[in-house]
Amino acid sequence: MEIEIATIGGYEEVGRQMTAVRAGNDVVIFDMGLNLSQVLIHDNVETERMHSLDLIDMGAIPDDRIMSDLEGDVQAIVPTHGHLDHIGAISKLAHRYDAPVVATPFTIELVKQQIESEQKFGVENDLVKMDPGESMTIGDHGCELEFVNVTHSIIDAINPVLHTPEGAIVYGLDKRMDHTPVIGDPIDMKRFREIGREGEGVLCYIEDCTNANKKGRTPSENVAREHLRDVLYSIEDYDGGIVATTFSSHIARVKSLVEFADDIGRQPVLLGRSMEKYSGTAERLDFIDFPSDLGMFGHRKSVDRTFKRIMNEGKENFLPVVTGHQGEPRAMLTRMARGETPYELDDGDKVVFSARVIPEPTNEGQRYQAEKLLGMQGARIYDDIHVSGHLNQEGHYAMLDALQPQHIVPAHQDLKGLSGYVKLCEGEGYHMGRDVHVSRNGNLIQLVD
Amino acid sequence: MEIEIATIGGYEEVGRQMTAVRAGNDVVIFDMGLNLSQVLIHDNVETERMHSLDLIDMGAIPDDRIMSDLEGDVQAIVPTHGHLDHIGAISKLAHRYDAPVVATPFTIELVKQQIESEQKFGVENDLVKMDPGESMTIGDHGCELEFVNVTHSIIDAINPVLHTPEGAIVYGLDKRMDHTPVIGDPIDMKRFREIGREGEGVLCYIEDCTNANKKGRTPSENVAREHLRDVLYSIEDYDGGIVATTFSSHIARVKSLVEFADDIGRQPVLLGRSMEKYSGTAERLDFIDFPSDLGMFGHRKSVDRTFKRIMNEGKENFLPVVTGHQGEPRAMLTRMARGETPYELDDGDKVVFSARVIPEPTNEGQRYQAEKLLGMQGARIYDDIHVSGHLNQEGHYAMLDALQPQHIVPAHQDLKGLSGYVKLCEGEGYHMGRDVHVSRNGNLIQLVD
Amino acid sequence: MEIEIATIGGYEEVGRQMTAVRAGNDVVIFDMGLNLSQVLIHDNVETERMHSLDLIDMGAIPDDRIMSDLEGDVQAIVPTHGHLDHIGAISKLAHRYDAPVVATPFTIELVKQQIESEQKFGVENDLVKMDPGESMTIGDHGCELEFVNVTHSIIDAINPVLHTPEGAIVYGLDKRMDHTPVIGDPIDMKRFREIGREGEGVLCYIEDCTNANKKGRTPSENVAREHLRDVLYSIEDYDGGIVATTFSSHIARVKSLVEFADDIGRQPVLLGRSMEKYSGTAERLDFIDFPSDLGMFGHRKSVDRTFKRIMNEGKENFLPVVTGHQGEPRAMLTRMARGETPYELDDGDKVVFSARVIPEPTNEGQRYQAEKLLGMQGARIYDDIHVSGHLNQEGHYAMLDALQPQHIVPAHQDLKGLSGYVKLCEGEGYHMGRDVHVSRNGNLIQLVD
Amino acid sequence: MEIEIATIGGYEEVGRQMTAVRAGNDVVIFDMGLNLSQVLIHDNVETERMHSLDLIDMGAIPDDRIMSDLEGDVQAIVPTHGHLDHIGAISKLAHRYDAPVVATPFTIELVKQQIESEQKFGVENDLVKMDPGESMTIGDHGCELEFVNVTHSIIDAINPVLHTPEGAIVYGLDKRMDHTPVIGDPIDMKRFREIGREGEGVLCYIEDCTNANKKGRTPSENVAREHLRDVLYSIEDYDGGIVATTFSSHIARVKSLVEFADDIGRQPVLLGRSMEKYSGTAERLDFIDFPSDLGMFGHRKSVDRTFKRIMNEGKENFLPVVTGHQGEPRAMLTRMARGETPYELDDGDKVVFSARVIPEPTNEGQRYQAEKLLGMQGARIYDDIHVSGHLNQEGHYAMLDALQPQHIVPAHQDLKGLSGYVKLCEGEGYHMGRDVHVSRNGNLIQLVD
Repeated sequence: MEIEIATIGGYEEVGRQMTAVRAGNDVVIFDMGLNLSQVLIHDNVETERMHSLDLIDMGAIPDDRIMSDLEGDVQAIVPTHGHLDHIGAISKLAHRYDAPVVATPFTIELVKQQIESEQKFGVENDLVKMDPGESMTIGDHGCELEFVNVTHSIIDAINPVLHTPEGAIVYGLDKRMDHTPVIGDPIDMKRFREIGREGEGVLCYIEDCTNANKKGRTPSENVAREHLRDVLYSIEDYDGGIVATTFSSHIARVKSLVEFADDIGRQPVLLGRSMEKYSGTAERLDFIDFPSDLGMFGHRKSVDRTFKRIMNEGKENFLPVVTGHQGEPRAMLTRMARGETPYELDDGDKVVFSARVIPEPTNEGQRYQAEKLLGMQGARIYDDIHVSGHLNQEGHYAMLDALQPQHIVPAHQDLKGLSGYVKLCEGEGYHMGRDVHVSRNGNLIQLVD
Repeated sequence: MEIEIATIGGYEEVGRQMTAVRAGNDVVIFDMGLNLSQVLIHDNVETERMHSLDLIDMGAIPDDRIMSDLEGDVQAIVPTHGHLDHIGAISKLAHRYDAPVVATPFTIELVKQQIESEQKFGVENDLVKMDPGESMTIGDHGCELEFVNVTHSIIDAINPVLHTPEGAIVYGLDKRMDHTPVIGDPIDMKRFREIGREGEGVLCYIEDCTNANKKGRTPSENVAREHLRDVLYSIEDYDGGIVATTFSSHIARVKSLVEFADDIGRQPVLLGRSMEKYSGTAERLDFIDFPSDLGMFGHRKSVDRTFKRIMNEGKENFLPVVTGHQGEPRAMLTRMARGETPYELDDGDKVVFSARVIPEPTNEGQRYQAEKLLGMQGARIYDDIHVSGHLNQEGHYAMLDALQPQHIVPAHQDLKGLSGYVKLCEGEGYHMGRDVHVSRNGNLIQLVD
Repeated sequence: MEIEIATIGGYEEVGRQMTAVRAGNDVVIFDMGLNLSQVLIHDNVETERMHSLDLIDMGAIPDDRIMSDLEGDVQAIVPTHGHLDHIGAISKLAHRYDAPVVATPFTIELVKQQIESEQKFGVENDLVKMDPGESMTIGDHGCELEFVNVTHSIIDAINPVLHTPEGAIVYGLDKRMDHTPVIGDPIDMKRFREIGREGEGVLCYIEDCTNANKKGRTPSENVAREHLRDVLYSIEDYDGGIVATTFSSHIARVKSLVEFADDIGRQPVLLGRSMEKYSGTAERLDFIDFPSDLGMFGHRKSVDRTFKRIMNEGKENFLPVVTGHQGEPRAMLTRMARGETPYELDDGDKVVFSARVIPEPTNEGQRYQAEKLLGMQGARIYDDIHVSGHLNQEGHYAMLDALQPQHIVPAHQDLKGLSGYVKLCEGEGYHMGRDVHVSRNGNLIQLVD
Repeated sequence: MEIEIATIGGYEEVGRQMTAVRAGNDVVIFDMGLNLSQVLIHDNVETERMHSLDLIDMGAIPDDRIMSDLEGDVQAIVPTHGHLDHIGAISKLAHRYDAPVVATPFTIELVKQQIESEQKFGVENDLVKMDPGESMTIGDHGCELEFVNVTHSIIDAINPVLHTPEGAIVYGLDKRMDHTPVIGDPIDMKRFREIGREGEGVLCYIEDCTNANKKGRTPSENVAREHLRDVLYSIEDYDGGIVATTFSSHIARVKSLVEFADDIGRQPVLLGRSMEKYSGTAERLDFIDFPSDLGMFGHRKSVDRTFKRIMNEGKENFLPVVTGHQGEPRAMLTRMARGETPYELDDGDKVVFSARVIPEPTNEGQRYQAEKLLGMQGARIYDDIHVSGHLNQEGHYAMLDALQPQHIVPAHQDLKGLSGYVKLCEGEGYHMGRDVHVSRNGNLIQLVD
């Protein structure tokens, strides 16, 4: 059976991930993501109203025109988790394919919400839920799609595996190797090891190279949790305002914040549009059991009403968890920093960034400004209470050891970013150009012909 | 009563700390430290055989000639903890003063060992032990010396407080604000708050500015412990060599390493001269209860014999904890990296640095070389599993809040390093030149006349 | 005669410089500057319409309320050169003093323009021109004000010297030691050496510490010129668009750009409001003799008309020199990058930044964005073709050697920034706290009483 | 005719360059270099006495075993210039090939010296000189070897071009695009443009990617010269010691130092083994006409004798130009810093580093130590008076424009280092995997079959 891989997007950058695997006549697409930074560099761009081709030209979504070179039928579109760089182009591209979107329940829910807000295209693909650990048949020629549970900075993340008669294709984006993940099950390394050893073994492994140049091990979410606990407990006696911010989609972190707020005698409140969206969805789908009285507010009016209530009832009784960890100009924390909300910061108030600045001058500039404005109001900053969601080098070694793939395709980085991974693979006996395939957006890799 | 402070050493650098406080006719000296980097920059210097004046000329020990300007009698020499930059000059300078060395038991033991290895001077000062929480009378004019328990990267650390009729002088070097310190009691913030409010309050606070330019809070040792646990547990199944290194004097970290070694089914062994010295002393003084069969070896012969035994019985059964976390050319890990010991590193073996590189080009160069040599033998590096032993800015705020001192003297840094602390104090209503006294080595500050 | 120095602004930051010297009953004020970054951090602030007190609260202009503690009459307000951080607060503060503004012709002209655009206050102080090398009497008690010619990144810069019966007060802001400055005379080191040796010598030297932590020597403007020449000559054969940007007030650099444009067969045009302002002023005052047909356009309409003409006549015939070297969102180059002007960038077009990014995250973020947008249009970037306008350490040594001052006051930096200068002075035998006076905004230093 | 390229060494690192081109039955080898850093990481390694296989195992010299896969006869070994990473393995590998070494006169002379000091192998290949601009026939099938003059940080550098019936193979290591190179002719861009347009054009271009991630243009040596002039002229009046250091093989820089020494009234002297070697060779071959009385001393005894003479006759009359710009522990400047030579440094003496630290922690550590030791003796440092010898991105664009190659092979960097070049090529219409061949040590690239 012919096996071919189309590296469509996210092979020269982080963002707009899209990969297609053809096994004989059956094609599966993994991820359809958005590169948000290509959008934000322009002022006043509203992606909801834009056409795919314009977004492709901007480098914002994958250029899927190479799909016409792939002979076969798309059987499924499989986003691996709910981050925008993996699902953000579904509303722009999925309607071109006569295939269902197959994903875990949380991811499907986020895809659904995205399709609903789309204003240019009508996307009517079926949305099919499949849980980690489950499988489904793909086409009529013996292929099967399996979801292996992994751990990442969002819940319900999986690595899809396409079992073919020629061996398994493991799509490894995105994950961290976490054995104590705070929410959900640990990464299913046992299953990866089985896949590496059963049947024809692993024909090809497509890997998340985000941290490929970082040595050592990415710590467990539990380490971030203990760090966060240490910070919040240390200010237990403070009788003024404490505000926290983190990635809205990072439900495990939000959970820790909510719990520690309670531990130090403060009522947590989630504020900001995406804060409400992700946590609300997670709660509705029973991924998390928040206290019944936990407030979540997204619309500006209800947020401001909540701030007023907090000011009336005493800041010392609340822990607002807000958007704005990167200093985004329109996020809640930045509005607070500019004094545009009813929440008044006083000398000595604490702002806890349970996030790291994404190391890019635009973010660094915006975060710097947000922190400066917060500082002008007397606020004090706790920073970097965070762990990455991506494998460092020791995780890569462990995956190679578990899967023992015949071929490797590094993804989710540009050439510089994935260089460490190539070196690592070569240290394990692979060779670039032979079985390590460094690809570019728009290339085809023929594995079996 | 006249109160005067002589800032003798460590006010233009980190290292060679020495401060004298005169209350009327009674003088107490806090710390007598060594600046090791001024020694190491030269080849082949043996401090044990050197004269004080030469060491003063090198900038290695405090220039205490200003003590002749202080009218009064030295009643006590009080090292705050056992690090070399606080006790390392006692064997060179203490004999000039007719006064006992007063310190906590662990510190006294380290001072004793240092005096024994001194070859130039005979130091015969009394060595007096006093526990945290205890006090003693100083002179005949109403002064008292109290030890307040603090937390640092070495056990049995205190902040000495000299109670005078004019108020308390709190000597704040070195500490972190740790409420879960793994070994020993949490920092005694309750007592600091009392001192800030009782009697005349705090006349002067001398502060450890090592991290004064870092925002946020220094995490608890417990956070480093959880990080370390995460790393070691993640390699539990590895069946080759694992080696760890950390600061020899960091007994709490060594304790965690020893415990986690056991958890993952490996026998810990402590190797290297200073590893044996500090852990042996801590065990003898009952600060820690190591497993009865824990091996500690310092002499090269017994270390090499141990390595041979490890190789014979199988590397996979042991966790050697060795010296060399900074890549020091003569330390154990560097010898291992150069293949000079019987311990053979194989492809995939793990080296865990539970330490951070001290950010100075010499260390960075040596660490780089050590890591490169380790890498050439196939070893993989886990780095930065560590937390600082010094207060970040939020700790400084908390100390000011607790003590409410009339005067502040920043120490343990040069002007650049302490600049953040001056700014911080000014934000709290102090003013440099009025009640924040930025001093230099060899200056006198007259507080009450 | 009593001599006192009030360090009013710019002693804890770069920007809003202001220093007053009292000699007996006569007071001279040096500089009245604006800290623009404190303004820009807020959106939509129009300083022209703001009241002094609000600007003081923002940290934007010097808090001159300490002037009421200085007994004596202000005889002159002396800005040293025309940069905003030295003249930008004159329109907000000068009217409070019954004294003329005394400065070099170019500086006076810029002060005049600033006063004209002021909308809140009516400033009616006399504007008195004095050339480098000249002197005037101050008050009736033997004081004299002399202007010594110095070199900086703007023309007609001087260091004012207040000669008093107790010795000279030399105000050393801002300068580079340039012996080949492209425009104007070299720095007058001969006169500085004389001042150091005549009469009572130098009582006090107030120094520009901008680069005090940088070793070596700041290169001459001639080095930047040769670098720029090398870049522009290397693209002589390019037949598309070349655009250059630099500091508008940097007339020497603009001169080089204009000359090299001609050398490579292109017509230079100066575009952008401040580009027109500074170069126009310099030409009107005969500091520079631009080609008679050199276009300078400031208003958006005339700029866009010029761009249209350039597009019509062929980009390959022009070298637009525009504002926007820091990626400022509203500057000309950023507008070009966003495609908002009639000038169309094509693949391979060159953009020459004859400037360095001011190392602060806001600027770095904006520059990054501007460069990215330029890159999206195909432009290629030449960066860092620049030399600093401030003394590095070797310049400081040379000034101390020339002046041999009794007292030194470091200025134009915060504590961290000036730390290298204190160390340098102490290496030359001075001592902080004795004759090196590290001050803060709002302090008084009594030199003679 | 079959054309094949073997990328033997220097495709995963900087250093140990070696590339073979086969045109039909004729093979030409370009460069045989040494990676010195792989040697220096070990203590006490004497390469002169080592066997090739051990050096290959260390990663110090190219692993040329792939040459047995190339069917054909080696007709020439062609080092491009005299730096060790291009000629340093000739004495270890050349004897295996029955072919002459063909190079420019200066390079041949350095090869000869190297062969003479070799102690393990007898190298008896013919050494053939060919000047820039000349050509020779290779084999009997219509191939010709041409030397095109280029500019680099050593004199007499060329880019060899192998003209084949299928088009030209241009080997582009190492060069800067310098039109004012201080010594020798400018880079021959005219000839490159001709080669790009004549006959079959350029089949393949192998490029020096050292600076491929740096934007803009590498400045001309003339810019470094003007910078150096500015520094030395600025200390013309200093009446103590001035010492300079630079790359020994950088004859143009040495020439500038010698000339400016004379300009400021000092007698230049070249000190240190390699200083004598390179400058002596350059003078003997008439590349430079040093003053007849210029002293050059390599042996320690004669160096120390010279230092004694300098001390006797007055330091203020000399400018020693010495080895040690990277702080190498055994170089002359480091010995001076340690006080191991008769030259005594005094307070205020100047040390001019006309070099940049190679950015690698080992060098940075050593340079830091050397500077610290110099500083302890009172010396002042002028740093970074230098320009790179390698093309930045604008040079790469210009080369592509001139040559218009069908195929491109990036070299002289690892994957991370050359990533910027791949991106640049793709911006020009090439595509990685199609006509941009990112290779690894030991690979074969079949261009025509």
